[in-house]
Amino acid sequence: MMNQQIYASIITIGDELLIGQTIDTNSAWMAQELNKIGVWVKRRVAVGDKREDIWQALDEESEHAQIILLTGGLGPTADDITKPLLCDYFGGKMIMDENVLQHVTAIFRKLNRPMIDRNIKQAEVPDVCTVLMNKRGTAPGMLFRKGNCIYVSMPGVPHEMKGLMQDKVLPLLQKDFHLPFILHRTLLTAGVGESFLADKINEWEIALPAHIKLAYLPNYGMVRLRLTSTGNDEKKLSQELDEQFTELQQQVAEHMVINEDITLEEALGKLLLSKNQTMATAESCSGGYIAHLLTSIPGSSVYFKGTVVAYAYDVKEDVLGVNHETLEVKGAVSEETVREMLTGLLNTTTADYGIATSGVMGPGGGTTDKPVGTVWVAVGTREKAIAKKLYFRFDRLKNIELTAAHAMLLLYRFIKGDNLN
Amino acid sequence: MMNQQIYASIITIGDELLIGQTIDTNSAWMAQELNKIGVWVKRRVAVGDKREDIWQALDEESEHAQIILLTGGLGPTADDITKPLLCDYFGGKMIMDENVLQHVTAIFRKLNRPMIDRNIKQAEVPDVCTVLMNKRGTAPGMLFRKGNCIYVSMPGVPHEMKGLMQDKVLPLLQKDFHLPFILHRTLLTAGVGESFLADKINEWEIALPAHIKLAYLPNYGMVRLRLTSTGNDEKKLSQELDEQFTELQQQVAEHMVINEDITLEEALGKLLLSKNQTMATAESCSGGYIAHLLTSIPGSSVYFKGTVVAYAYDVKEDVLGVNHETLEVKGAVSEETVREMLTGLLNTTTADYGIATSGVMGPGGGTTDKPVGTVWVAVGTREKAIAKKLYFRFDRLKNIELTAAHAMLLLYRFIKGDNLN
Repeated sequence: MMNQQIYASIITIGDELLIGQTIDTNSAWMAQELNKIGVWVKRRVAVGDKREDIWQALDEESEHAQIILLTGGLGPTADDITKPLLCDYFGGKMIMDENVLQHVTAIFRKLNRPMIDRNIKQAEVPDVCTVLMNKRGTAPGMLFRKGNCIYVSMPGVPHEMKGLMQDKVLPLLQKDFHLPFILHRTLLTAGVGESFLADKINEWEIALPAHIKLAYLPNYGMVRLRLTSTGNDEKKLSQELDEQFTELQQQVAEHMVINEDITLEEALGKLLLSKNQTMATAESCSGGYIAHLLTSIPGSSVYFKGTVVAYAYDVKEDVLGVNHETLEVKGAVSEETVREMLTGLLNTTTADYGIATSGVMGPGGGTTDKPVGTVWVAVGTREKAIAKKLYFRFDRLKNIELTAAHAMLLLYRFIKGDNLN
Repeated sequence: MMNQQIYASIITIGDELLIGQTIDTNSAWMAQELNKIGVWVKRRVAVGDKREDIWQALDEESEHAQIILLTGGLGPTADDITKPLLCDYFGGKMIMDENVLQHVTAIFRKLNRPMIDRNIKQAEVPDVCTVLMNKRGTAPGMLFRKGNCIYVSMPGVPHEMKGLMQDKVLPLLQKDFHLPFILHRTLLTAGVGESFLADKINEWEIALPAHIKLAYLPNYGMVRLRLTSTGNDEKKLSQELDEQFTELQQQVAEHMVINEDITLEEALGKLLLSKNQTMATAESCSGGYIAHLLTSIPGSSVYFKGTVVAYAYDVKEDVLGVNHETLEVKGAVSEETVREMLTGLLNTTTADYGIATSGVMGPGGGTTDKPVGTVWVAVGTREKAIAKKLYFRFDRLKNIELTAAHAMLLLYRFIKGDNLN
């Protein structure tokens, strides 16, 4: 018999979410973790620091889900009203929790900061909750039960919320509910649009069993295809999903780049590690963003040597050795310049492979023959390099992100030995 | 007489939001823009690609707000069910819109991609909607009216949604509703916690008039304070808010860094522009992230020269001229190394100011005397430099972000002439 699907709702609290001052990254992380243990997030709701709005959200979400996770609204300042509200909602009264108080006191001692009434108040909790100790901060997590629902309130600071989820909330949910398995398989395609792919695999897609779903996730001009299956028998589920995934890979073979759910920078890192080789970048228009993506991966120092961000002409000339004449005659955004940047980079460092970028990211700086969005990328080794002209039509930040993605894709395929003409 | 406050709800549609594959950046941008024209976002809800969930969200949000904005669920592939649902919800039937069809055809011609049935279907709309032409993509925006509410459905692609909002939706809302003014004033403090600030300004805060609210927005170990005022008389509102803001600035003077709602990289750029000076960075542990933040600002090429990301020892030595002995004896994460990196950077480029960073970002690489999170930063000119040791206790990405923020803060205060001992 199939387990009943358990649903969660995530409520994020705070005016800063409603005026757009803060981008909510918590919900996405929480959804990923819940998914891994077989809980499906049905809804995410953001409300302001307003008593009746939070109260109403609690009422409404309990109609949609059995697990209600709340983040935010627990800080020490006056704009926080969540804790007293939770106390009323679940019919309790506030009491001082001695363990939390000790913990808060220890934190302030360590930080060497004076402890004031507001901080002491953080150790007060409703007497109807189970306290979840927050090792990473002063505001404790709180768990409540009402009707068939579990409610957990956590601070909005991502680092603290994550600690509480991993140490307390997820293990607790796994104990409380009999959860199904949710499995995913993801691949990345490049060079074709969503609708073209959909048409190509249409017959296979409509023949998929009901418990396996396909999703199209377009980003950066590439499309990820994700298969999701839900059920109780993990082994059977996994085997069946692998068979469908193999079939999907065959159908899109000519457009597939990576058959794992990893980023391009992770794929590039894995490939270099497997070959025991290294890389470096010479970035003009991407301004260090490729370096940032690569160095965000733990352990990247093994295969990543470094970067020269050459924004000014003199850095292109003095550090990378680009010819003054090339810059004057061909311009900074040209095939010749990116090729010389790449050569200079590989002469300057001991890296095996290099990426060089130069382009017009906007909003200013465009000309008739080099409009905003024009980018030249070169990738290669000391022996062999290729250069490509790209064109993007978005805003500055998006153009930078696209340049980085396509430059890494190009090097990845170059190392793989793909035909890039 | 006070205008009635107009509320909006944002509904984002898509399974990718509920499994955490996509971070919702659309809602924050939309909230900012709505705020500017005096609309308060009361709730944001994310639901999956499931007919009854979307239907229910439409019902529920119409109880909360007069303006309901929907994004997502309009792509050409089979997992999109939003358009037929909207057609049923508002009681219409699907018809082909000739203007949209022409527009879609033109896009495909320009891209030189074959146009298939799925693409043609994108030009179908419910006959009960007002079509909002989407210049940036194939899926049109659609406006519906029902009861006292306006509903607008837009594609989830950020670039397309933004175009529709700016060109169509915002002007239309301003015409339809008599909207109040919402004004903000924001300042940034560093070096003290949220609760300490709250205590310091407590008396002033509780004496604020009811229509002016104060919010504490902590991030990167710094705290932003934001004053918000709502009303009809813009001039009076602005004058009154400025008076309170002046008072607030005086009360937190010793901790205030910036008295505008701009980022550290924007503040640093403005300061350099005002002095007609330039900067560069030598980044080890921050891996190019400071360069990325600085180059994300349009026009930054005027004051930003470039960066050397020296991840490997040989790049530190060969490009920046750090002594081999310093690295061997003192280690890469040391005051001596960041000072030599800074000197090398300013010898290599023509920049007036420099930042150098070196640290252990984790999760690996920590030792007893240099645990994960240990960072050395140096900032200065050819004549004078200062170095500071910092310590962060978060995950790799957060440690990188904190290093960048605090390094930029340090240079900003150095240029300002603050006492940094």
